[in-house]
Amino acid sequence: MKPYRMVSSDLKNEKTLVRVKDVVFGGRKVVVIAGPCAVESREQVVAAARGVRRAGAVMLRGGAFKTRTSPYSFQGLGEEGLRLLKEASEETGLAAVTEVLDKDSLELALEYVDMLQIGARNMQNSSLLRMVGCSGKPVLLKRGFSATVEEWLMAAEYIVAAGNHNVVLCERGIRTFESATRNTLDLGIVPLVQELSHLPVIVDPSHATGKRCLVAPMSRAAVAAGADGLLLEVHPEPEQALCDGFQSLSTDDFGCLMPELQAIAGIVGRTIASSNCIVSQVAVER
Amino acid sequence: MKPYRMVSSDLKNEKTLVRVKDVVFGGRKVVVIAGPCAVESREQVVAAARGVRRAGAVMLRGGAFKTRTSPYSFQGLGEEGLRLLKEASEETGLAAVTEVLDKDSLELALEYVDMLQIGARNMQNSSLLRMVGCSGKPVLLKRGFSATVEEWLMAAEYIVAAGNHNVVLCERGIRTFESATRNTLDLGIVPLVQELSHLPVIVDPSHATGKRCLVAPMSRAAVAAGADGLLLEVHPEPEQALCDGFQSLSTDDFGCLMPELQAIAGIVGRTIASSNCIVSQVAVER
Amino acid sequence: MKPYRMVSSDLKNEKTLVRVKDVVFGGRKVVVIAGPCAVESREQVVAAARGVRRAGAVMLRGGAFKTRTSPYSFQGLGEEGLRLLKEASEETGLAAVTEVLDKDSLELALEYVDMLQIGARNMQNSSLLRMVGCSGKPVLLKRGFSATVEEWLMAAEYIVAAGNHNVVLCERGIRTFESATRNTLDLGIVPLVQELSHLPVIVDPSHATGKRCLVAPMSRAAVAAGADGLLLEVHPEPEQALCDGFQSLSTDDFGCLMPELQAIAGIVGRTIASSNCIVSQVAVER
Amino acid sequence: MKPYRMVSSDLKNEKTLVRVKDVVFGGRKVVVIAGPCAVESREQVVAAARGVRRAGAVMLRGGAFKTRTSPYSFQGLGEEGLRLLKEASEETGLAAVTEVLDKDSLELALEYVDMLQIGARNMQNSSLLRMVGCSGKPVLLKRGFSATVEEWLMAAEYIVAAGNHNVVLCERGIRTFESATRNTLDLGIVPLVQELSHLPVIVDPSHATGKRCLVAPMSRAAVAAGADGLLLEVHPEPEQALCDGFQSLSTDDFGCLMPELQAIAGIVGRTIASSNCIVSQVAVER
Repeated sequence: MKPYRMVSSDLKNEKTLVRVKDVVFGGRKVVVIAGPCAVESREQVVAAARGVRRAGAVMLRGGAFKTRTSPYSFQGLGEEGLRLLKEASEETGLAAVTEVLDKDSLELALEYVDMLQIGARNMQNSSLLRMVGCSGKPVLLKRGFSATVEEWLMAAEYIVAAGNHNVVLCERGIRTFESATRNTLDLGIVPLVQELSHLPVIVDPSHATGKRCLVAPMSRAAVAAGADGLLLEVHPEPEQALCDGFQSLSTDDFGCLMPELQAIAGIVGRTIASSNCIVSQVAVER
Repeated sequence: MKPYRMVSSDLKNEKTLVRVKDVVFGGRKVVVIAGPCAVESREQVVAAARGVRRAGAVMLRGGAFKTRTSPYSFQGLGEEGLRLLKEASEETGLAAVTEVLDKDSLELALEYVDMLQIGARNMQNSSLLRMVGCSGKPVLLKRGFSATVEEWLMAAEYIVAAGNHNVVLCERGIRTFESATRNTLDLGIVPLVQELSHLPVIVDPSHATGKRCLVAPMSRAAVAAGADGLLLEVHPEPEQALCDGFQSLSTDDFGCLMPELQAIAGIVGRTIASSNCIVSQVAVER
Repeated sequence: MKPYRMVSSDLKNEKTLVRVKDVVFGGRKVVVIAGPCAVESREQVVAAARGVRRAGAVMLRGGAFKTRTSPYSFQGLGEEGLRLLKEASEETGLAAVTEVLDKDSLELALEYVDMLQIGARNMQNSSLLRMVGCSGKPVLLKRGFSATVEEWLMAAEYIVAAGNHNVVLCERGIRTFESATRNTLDLGIVPLVQELSHLPVIVDPSHATGKRCLVAPMSRAAVAAGADGLLLEVHPEPEQALCDGFQSLSTDDFGCLMPELQAIAGIVGRTIASSNCIVSQVAVER
Repeated sequence: MKPYRMVSSDLKNEKTLVRVKDVVFGGRKVVVIAGPCAVESREQVVAAARGVRRAGAVMLRGGAFKTRTSPYSFQGLGEEGLRLLKEASEETGLAAVTEVLDKDSLELALEYVDMLQIGARNMQNSSLLRMVGCSGKPVLLKRGFSATVEEWLMAAEYIVAAGNHNVVLCERGIRTFESATRNTLDLGIVPLVQELSHLPVIVDPSHATGKRCLVAPMSRAAVAAGADGLLLEVHPEPEQALCDGFQSLSTDDFGCLMPELQAIAGIVGRTIASSNCIVSQVAVER
């Protein structure tokens, strides 16, 4: 018997649609979220936002509070980062998602962004799960890098049980003995989780592989496997990035990838969500 | 520095083409090998061969010597299995591949099949690697279920160093903490190995996932990721299979999958190898 | 080069001594902490405290805030649990350690206990690491169940860099493909970490093995390997436990184990820390 | 239900005693096997044999056929190695064990040694398991580096089902995400396997840790955990070794370790098997 209840497909047959402004996860449209690992400056995040917007992304990602392995690594710009992210979001019309780490960062993020991300390292931080569960904002829940599918769904259950049904799951690679890639992208569980649960499931091939040259093939593979979306690291100048540049696509690379994804989506009966609707609403500098 | 030499892309820039009768691995065409896990009877293997032939496979797989975890499980029909496999192969014009375990099974297989398979459990059986290296027959080398990419390429190096350049690598899932799937299909290493080595790389989604419902999505994903081929378990009656039926496609399922693979191959600049050339040579009962 | 600085043995040659009331980690004496997984009631925690005190433990463990995989599992008694733990601690003279999860539980715990525990699931919760780093209280830092030695030491670095040098590391098993035991106790890294760092390292064989019958052998092994202490789950009635009873020793089992540990400690030039000094200070009911 | 039958403790309550000349595995005495990873020369193997004999080992190990990751690494001296091993064995009166890889090496080894070793890479080589099962010689069966306990016992079942009841199991570390040690020594399964099966279980801390400084602590830990024996790499000049010198003890290190092991054995109701009986039989040069 499944230990999760509210997130189980046994409870509810049709897929949950998670709305973030104009974007809908879990429907026929595959949602592409793109942007830099960390917000570094006004110039950087706005350039990234315009670039990914132009190439067809419908949401913007950008970290303001980073959980790094080392206390001496860049930890993000904090509230200033959120402010810049919001500016880029408003200018391009792209909804924004950012990671939250604790009560303080959560309270700030609620003012600035459209979706909250729980990172892999915090997937079993039950205190944080309950807080985002009470917040009402849509949540992007990354799989812990050594979490089983069951533990991941139980983490989602914490959020849903606290009253928030707007949860999108994100596979981002697991830790295995293999060190040729940063993590091992576990694509096989995408269709599996879509059977076990009614929640949308997206894929982050950037963290999973940790190598720029593998991001495009794994993005194509994820769409072919039926993922409900992608979360991609895209940076206007990857070699200058303060964080994870080696796995970031340039905006040009990203622009080349999108038509391929569109074509593959068509074969599996989907389409890539487009920002056309937004285009009509905002003036995007080109 | 890479510890492998002859299989390294540093040695040779262009991809190795491995020919097995009319089939070529490593070129523009994606090779689909299909058939039952084990040869069980004349009826079964001929039905499987005709079914996969009709759906578009260009090679036939079938085990005569099985390495099973338990000594009490079905261990294959031995030479009789090889004879039946050859019969099915000749009747359909499909080249055949089968696993060899040791000197005795290797010597027998040389008489009956077109390609030798080294299974995951024997990937580091250096004695066997050297023997197939001396045999001259094309070799399908599965990745050990806990072998690193480097160890896998070193295993290929054993074969090539013994004089046999016709090696095709096959990713078939690795062992991780996750037990929701039989193994974890490590698709990210497919484009990686294609950069590190000049050898063709194919994917076995049947053993990797161990669940029939995941085989089609992972087959699509493998082609989207740029794999040079697929190795699929297809059985005329999966629920009657003596071995691994739960992960076998029926011939009908397989027939539905092939057009999707063809379409995805087109998007990544490939095509699925077709048996048309063979069709003209042999009369296939339909 | 080591990425950690302040916790590195390169910085400081002699071992750090971490004092928790009368108890000292990192010296010649091996510290045994014992008690129930969770505080369940006054009766239970006092009985456990008396039992482990009588058998020779010098510190008491007991959870008031539990991070459980399921939101529907018992989550601990919260502040009431801390109050009962303190009562048991005062009655027996045993210093107490409890896990903290977030700002709120940390602030409460500071009033009631002598040492703060960071659980495996929160080992990379950098926000929490900084908070306990600022608290001044000694910290027991469990290894994340899929954390490398380097990541674990980096987590300790977060705490030390925030100004708190009183960190004790605790190996508690890692996640591997093997499911015959709950986790895989990684005893080999105990002497390794003692070379890399000046911080004391203790072992939790209860969570590592998840099986009562393996706790005694692994406790003996840990002392033989040179561990600076043990963290053991002991419950007056393991079969009635609300949490993890299957891996808890009874107080009688624990009583039988202590003399064996004492004897092994002697062989490796250590001794088991005894509560004699405390005995003279408090009246313990027997 | 357990899938293994003949090796199960359900079948037979008392422990199997495996005799190799004068040595008995599985009784009260803990058996220490020591010697070089590979036989390199007459001088080396005789010096090693004398050294480990003097320090108290009762069996000699030494590889003549090595399975190496690279085809370009030293592969052992083959039959010449067996001849030298036998010479050292006869001179010191120590029974000898060596690894076999296939039919040819097995047939040779049967003439020269007292016990056959199946290495980790061949643990699921069912063809080889059956051959050693038919040979009648005692077998040392190493756990595959990613084999579950169940798969390991099934491998033993292959040997016993072929008629050979003289099987000793050897834990030698498993492959995990942690790369700070060569493998992760899984000591917790030693008492577990002793419950599940009636076969003796020994431990190889040299391959498990891959670091000389960890071999002594893990040897002590293994005896404290109740292992029935140890398999140790000891080389007269570790820094000159052709294979795995970095994890070999010198004969002096080994001499210091033995009294500690003797003392720990006493605490767990065992004793280290001594070569006194042999001493009276042969004249050992000192």
